[in-house]
Order: sequence, then C-alpha cells, then structure tokens
Amino acid sequence: MAGEEAVSNKQVILNDYVTGFPKESDLKITTGSIKLKVPESSKDTVLLKNLYISCDPYLRLRMSKPDRPSVFAFFKPGSPLDGYGVAKVLDSTHPNYKKGDLVWGFNGWEEYSLITSPQLLIKIQHTDVPLSYYTGILGMPGMTAYAGLYEVSAPKKGEYVFVSAASGAVGQLVGQFAKLAGCYVVGSAGSKQKVDLLKNKLGFDDAFNYKEEPDLDAALKRCFPEGIDIYFENVGGKMLNAVLLNMRVHGRIAVCGMVSQYNLEKPEGVNNLMQIVGKRIRMEGFAAGDYYHLYPKFLELVIPAIKEGKIVYVEDIAEGLENAPAALVGLFSGRNVGKQLVVVAQE
Amino acid sequence: MAGEEAVSNKQVILNDYVTGFPKESDLKITTGSIKLKVPESSKDTVLLKNLYISCDPYLRLRMSKPDRPSVFAFFKPGSPLDGYGVAKVLDSTHPNYKKGDLVWGFNGWEEYSLITSPQLLIKIQHTDVPLSYYTGILGMPGMTAYAGLYEVSAPKKGEYVFVSAASGAVGQLVGQFAKLAGCYVVGSAGSKQKVDLLKNKLGFDDAFNYKEEPDLDAALKRCFPEGIDIYFENVGGKMLNAVLLNMRVHGRIAVCGMVSQYNLEKPEGVNNLMQIVGKRIRMEGFAAGDYYHLYPKFLELVIPAIKEGKIVYVEDIAEGLENAPAALVGLFSGRNVGKQLVVVAQE
Repeated sequence: MAGEEAVSNKQVILNDYVTGFPKESDLKITTGSIKLKVPESSKDTVLLKNLYISCDPYLRLRMSKPDRPSVFAFFKPGSPLDGYGVAKVLDSTHPNYKKGDLVWGFNGWEEYSLITSPQLLIKIQHTDVPLSYYTGILGMPGMTAYAGLYEVSAPKKGEYVFVSAASGAVGQLVGQFAKLAGCYVVGSAGSKQKVDLLKNKLGFDDAFNYKEEPDLDAALKRCFPEGIDIYFENVGGKMLNAVLLNMRVHGRIAVCGMVSQYNLEKPEGVNNLMQIVGKRIRMEGFAAGDYYHLYPKFLELVIPAIKEGKIVYVEDIAEGLENAPAALVGLFSGRNVGKQLVVVAQE
Repeated sequence: MAGEEAVSNKQVILNDYVTGFPKESDLKITTGSIKLKVPESSKDTVLLKNLYISCDPYLRLRMSKPDRPSVFAFFKPGSPLDGYGVAKVLDSTHPNYKKGDLVWGFNGWEEYSLITSPQLLIKIQHTDVPLSYYTGILGMPGMTAYAGLYEVSAPKKGEYVFVSAASGAVGQLVGQFAKLAGCYVVGSAGSKQKVDLLKNKLGFDDAFNYKEEPDLDAALKRCFPEGIDIYFENVGGKMLNAVLLNMRVHGRIAVCGMVSQYNLEKPEGVNNLMQIVGKRIRMEGFAAGDYYHLYPKFLELVIPAIKEGKIVYVEDIAEGLENAPAALVGLFSGRNVGKQLVVVAQE
C-alpha cells in the first residue's frame, strides 16, 4: 500500500553546539528514511512534505549550548534543525488537516516531517500569491513587522521611524508599513546594493550603509535632525547605543532582535540607557507568536496590498536542502539580500 | 509699607559645573537681598517663603556642563539651585494663589523665591499631615512611586516585585504600594540599617544589602527563585544587568532613575539587553510630571493610608539652608536614611 514503503529523507543536522559565528561545517546533510504515512496509532499527527524552509536569525540562539533556562528550545547535536516553513500535508490523523492541505508553521529541516504538535501549523487559504511568501511577508516575519510596528510602536502620521537591518525579512516590511502609516522612514543596511534597494524599490525616504559610517551617532543626526520617534530594533549593540542618543521624548523602541550580538561570547555593553529616563522612552521586546490572533486582520491588509503592488517583498532563494547550511550561515555576514529561504521541493 | 524694605535672602549657589561625584565645595552659601512684595508691574507672579527643600538624585544631572540638549534644565554657575519644595505664599499677583496659601512645587534653594511660572506650584489642601511630606510621599517622589508602579508596571496580585534603592524617597513607597497590590516585594539597599528598615518597618518581604553581595545575579536568584515580574529601577548599571537575567516572560521594568550612573564620566555598559527580546520585557522610562492629572486620585489613596498607619514614610531631615549642600551630596554616598529634605524655615 502507498506509504508503507520507507523513502529516503534528507535532513540538515546540527553537528555540535555552536560558539561564535556559525560555520557551514557546524551543520551536515544526512539521509534517513521515513514512511510516508502517519502510523495508525498516532492521534493528531500530520505528515508533511516540506516545500520551503525559512532562514531566520533567531535560529542562531537555538544552536548554542544551553547554559541557563531560555524561552527558546535549543537544538540537539545529531538532530535536524526545525523552524518556520511551508509544507503540504501528505497524511493526517488530525481533524483540522487533510491530505493536500498547504500549511505554514513549524516543520523540520528535512524533506518530510512527522509533526505531533500540529497546533503550530496554520492552513494556507490564499494561494494566488507566491507560496514562498508564507516564510516571509505572509508568515512569521510579516507578523513580526506588523505587530512590532502597529501594535508595539503605535506610529502616528508624521513621526520619524528608523529601522535597522532594513532590507531583511522583517525590516523591509517595517519600512513599508511605516510609510502606509504616514511616517518618515530611514533604514540602515550593510551594503550599497541594499541601500539602493531601500531607497529605490522599498520606498524608504532615506537609508545609509552602517559599515561606511565612522560615527553612527552623526549618521543618525544627519538623517534625523528632529530625532527618532520609533526605532525598530533588529541589531542591538553599537547601533542601539547611538539610537538612544537620538530618540525623542516619549519615543518607542520595538525590540525584535539584536542580530549583531548573537555570535558574541559576551554581548556589547550599551551605556546610553540613561536616555530612557529623561526622555521617557519605552523599549519593548515582542514576539510575533503573541499576536497570531491578529493574523486574519493582518491578511486583510496585506494580501490586497501585495496584489495591488502597494507592498513589495524581496526574497533571496536558495535551491535545495544541501544549500541550507550556507543560506543560514550567510545571514550573519549579511550575504542575503532580502528574505532568505530555501526551496526543499516543488509542490 | 511692609515688604518695601529689602531683607536678606540666603541662597545655595552652584560654584561651577560638576564632574564626577558632587562635593560640598561645588556649592556655596551666599546672602543676597529681596523685597518681600511682588512688584506691581509683575503679572501672575508669586513671592514664596520657602519652608522645605527636597534633595533629589536627579538634581545631579542638572549640575553637569550642558553638552547636548537635555530634557532637564541645567543649573547655571553663580545662580541658586532650584527644585521641588514646600513654601508659603507671602504675596501674589496670580489669581490662583493668595497670601497665606501653602504650596508645593518648584522653588529656589533660598529663603525667599519670586516665582514667575507658578503653574509649577500646587496648592496644599490637606494640612493634617506633616507639611514636610509634600517634599516626599505627598509630592513628586510619592507620585513617582504611584505612577511608576500602578500606571507603568500594572502589578497583578501575586507578582514578584523588586525595588532598588528601596529605602529611598521613592523606593520605600514602591514597596508599600506593591504590598497593597498583593505582590511579593524584595528591596535592595546599601547598609544593614536600611535592610532592617525595609524588613521591619516598611513591610518588604525580603531585602538585601547590595554592597555585601559579591554576585548580584546570585542574590536575585536567592530572593526570586521564580524570577521577577516587575523591577522598579532606581540605580542602573550592574544591578540592571543582573536583574535582566532574572526577569520573567512579559516582565516590566519601570525606569525611574539610574543613580549609580549619574556621577560616572561614562556610564557602565549593560550587556544583558538580549533578555528583552526572548522574554518580551517592557522597559519604560517615566516621570511623575506626566501623571499629575492623577494627583487627586493619588491623594484619595494615600492620605487615609497615612492617617490609618497603613503607609509609613521615613524622612531624613537636615536643618537649615547651610546644611543643604551636605544633604544633597550625601545622597550619592547613601548617607541619608529615607527621604532627604532640608528645613529652610518654620511656617
């Protein structure tokens, strides 16, 4: 019977806990096997054929050796990574999912995944947009940008918004959402190509290459002579320190991530936090997962905006699981331009 | 006619901009003169006889050389300090104030002050409590504790609250307000005497002397095995860094001040800010001045609580303007026990 025969299942495995910058050699490709059928005794289980996997900076935090309790589940050496992705249901004993459904959510870095916690899978209703978008604009990064800007930062028309890592999976959307809210938006990125993208394709009012600025404080003063109302924080460290000096009274810092710090043994010290007191700044960490109840409302905004070309989305697509290690590692040197994802298989 | 003759007016003058820890010699006592009558040509002006002045840590920030725009007005060398205090109206051309009124708000560090911006004065309605309380529990520090705890931190019954500088003007109230809200409260302070005060008089569940803890992270783990929901931040630096490691998911840090940093040429770096992301921590600077619309509601809570002995308030009272420099400077070595104020004159 179909599915009774085991098929090969290529996987991306963590070799050992990572210290410092991750290297391709921290990961390896192995081939296991899997039966393409949910065992009859397994309730509420879903078998996925993985189509896309998403390379996200936070995955680095899960590659470290667990040294104190964390809200993130650490990866285990010898086991495949997991994370956000897009997949097709091949078999299911869960009433909400049936064969042929397309889903996004948590799957493994492998060709096929047997998922026993399908509550982390969301069924895809709109298929008249690129399916890969569900790793980005229509998935976790999209919800991150939406929640962090609209819910955490509450932008008002005319406010000054700064976004770091601005051409990345989340940043490029924050900028576009802020423009929709009537804000003045400046982004920072790490190459001329990315700066051009921000200014010419993604609608930012201004942008700068942080690698070419000897003085980030001066760069921010140049771009924001009136100061910054909202900082969408993706990088941490020196940039955060400079931003604090340039925040306005009652400014908001939505802390999405601090990617410049993830590979450091000891994160950089931020010494301008006193700005928070006098200027009554609110700095707030958040995670898309706390806002998924807003996903239907989010789609109502973003699906038409995509179709009408009011929002664009830049992807950087690697082909095949065997290229996933390089794609993931590349995030930390800024090699990707736009949202980094990996095609595992065609639908 | 009364008031036409000039009388002597003792003042506390800033000698020069301060760097590092302030010293008594940064201030001097001089004697000027003043007519005890508002000039007839001066509209909306109030002449005050000052009764109490309030020594507050934020005054240190106003003693530095202005190097970049600040929300605080810097003091001018050669001029008297100003700040919160309690005073009696001797004369007034402002319709809201009349001779004999008692007020709290901004006055000068001097015997008599001619106030041309009386919108910073609040008339005292309740005089059946110690008048000095209007420099503390019934004034800016009281509103700071109230707003920072109830408005910024929104404590829920059973939550874990940590307060630094806990026996100070604000901290001692934060702890008592948190107990009223049904929280578990721990405070840190800088001497055994203060720790005893917290535990035996001010109703804290636990307290520790930070100067005797070689490892602040370990001290916080001992006091909060389940972690901290709310941190009322008064000190900054190493304590903030250790607290971040011990915050719980969705924790709140109400940033009132960072007194440990005010005298440093370069503030200490805080390198545990990544905790903000994973744990979705909200860190928010605030100032009592943004919440004075709540003052009537605040008094409804706190006046009966004082009279019924449900809230106590510890003051450290210096006698006479000539002792004001020592009283102010003493804040930064923790010499004061409780709210530091100076008696300028009896009513």
